[in-house]
Amino acid sequence: MRQFGTVTIVGVGLIGGSIGLALRRRGLADRVIGLGRDRERLAEAARLGTIDEGMTDRDRAVAEADIVVVCTPTDRIADDVKRLAVASRSDVVITDAGSTKRRIVEAVEQDDRARAVFVGAHPLAGSERRGAAAARADLLEGKVCALTPSSRTPGDRLRRAMEFWSAVGCRIVTLDADAHDEALARTSHLPHVVASALALSVPAEHLPLAAGAYRDGTRVAASDPDLWVAIFLENPDHLLAALEDFRSALDHFRDALQERDRERLRSLWQNGKLVREQFDPPPTH
Amino acid sequence: MRQFGTVTIVGVGLIGGSIGLALRRRGLADRVIGLGRDRERLAEAARLGTIDEGMTDRDRAVAEADIVVVCTPTDRIADDVKRLAVASRSDVVITDAGSTKRRIVEAVEQDDRARAVFVGAHPLAGSERRGAAAARADLLEGKVCALTPSSRTPGDRLRRAMEFWSAVGCRIVTLDADAHDEALARTSHLPHVVASALALSVPAEHLPLAAGAYRDGTRVAASDPDLWVAIFLENPDHLLAALEDFRSALDHFRDALQERDRERLRSLWQNGKLVREQFDPPPTH
Repeated sequence: MRQFGTVTIVGVGLIGGSIGLALRRRGLADRVIGLGRDRERLAEAARLGTIDEGMTDRDRAVAEADIVVVCTPTDRIADDVKRLAVASRSDVVITDAGSTKRRIVEAVEQDDRARAVFVGAHPLAGSERRGAAAARADLLEGKVCALTPSSRTPGDRLRRAMEFWSAVGCRIVTLDADAHDEALARTSHLPHVVASALALSVPAEHLPLAAGAYRDGTRVAASDPDLWVAIFLENPDHLLAALEDFRSALDHFRDALQERDRERLRSLWQNGKLVREQFDPPPTH
Repeated sequence: MRQFGTVTIVGVGLIGGSIGLALRRRGLADRVIGLGRDRERLAEAARLGTIDEGMTDRDRAVAEADIVVVCTPTDRIADDVKRLAVASRSDVVITDAGSTKRRIVEAVEQDDRARAVFVGAHPLAGSERRGAAAARADLLEGKVCALTPSSRTPGDRLRRAMEFWSAVGCRIVTLDADAHDEALARTSHLPHVVASALALSVPAEHLPLAAGAYRDGTRVAASDPDLWVAIFLENPDHLLAALEDFRSALDHFRDALQERDRERLRSLWQNGKLVREQFDPPPTH
């Protein structure tokens, strides 16, 4: 038997499909099953090589699974995990790929059976594109996967989930579910709202004069609405706090601009530049 | 004689250096002279092949120039153009690469000699990097160059400037200098302020959990402070208006989030997505 036996991926879109491709290309599983609701999409996912076989029947799809990875939209994950736990073997590990964690972990932990097998996860990889057709075997390569075990998460399940996410290419970071949501509100959810607000502030007739700063600043505004609205509504309080701080930073720029205050503009810019260069150090010559 | 004879590039940084590389690789000029203040930088620019020769003496550098391209910071361009016009042949064409246009064009037009030879230009190409070492022969390839002639710009100079910017790879758009600044306030200056404010809103300790949305949303925040503060201060009124509209879009998101209003969030997101997809149509399968 290969390292992870039978793996069932629930929701074979961009992330689920990329996990399937990585498992199959790296020879990590005996069998990769895709569970979904749409037969045609499952057939396409199989044609693209992201899964060995697609199934629409939950019980059949997870009956033999060693690992179940739930890649459905964030607002469906907790319910899916609870239902899947009932249908699975008692030694299964269930993990997910949801962009928010606190509400999911809390909801799963209400359920004894689900709690005993679940390890919350968030691989920080994505794209404004979606669907298995956009999947890539290296999408997770070198990306951070945040795991959010609670004090009640069984240690053996956590170890197994760490092995799994490492094996598909991720670097593991473990932290508390609420700390995850607080950080991601700033590093991911805020940049998405900002990109969308920026897209709304540039009239279409000006687009012929848009270049790199617009392109990069608005890229994620083309992401799927249902996916992102669900994420925002799973994390509204941390996101509102992040928006408030962003507005303050923006107001500092506005005030300095109204005063034509060169020194203050320069100091604001310099501070932002310093943080950005910690994320992505400039090339040295 | 090749198409553009002697071309003098004033300020051999990222843009000036890339223009020089394009001229030399494409065999468009007999001689490319770099005019600057720092001998060492000029020597490096020559070693990198961006210019044939560097000079620090203005009169010597432009005495034989058929075309002079002013690539100095926006707040120095108008004065540079006026001084260069005095030192140049009467049949010269002087153009620039400044990111703002109205104030530059107005200042140049106060001066009869400069007005008779000047065509304002803005090639929409750049990078968060700077200096001749970052120059690339294809930086301008396929990029828009906005030309902002006034009613007083001589027609033969405008034609020659259009030929020049086309020859180095640009697609030409002509428009009024103030219309240029109004559009660029939204398509470029606003995205820069937003990127910087975003960088200021993500504490460094959260950066290990930052990924693509943060990376792209803040990329230009690493740009040069002096360059960008000068641009903002050359275009404060249009930029303040753009900031105001951006804040409104942001407030719509905040209000909808406070109300947990899924439909309103979805509709805001969908509208932003539609504009973004006009800029960069999604791949069709």
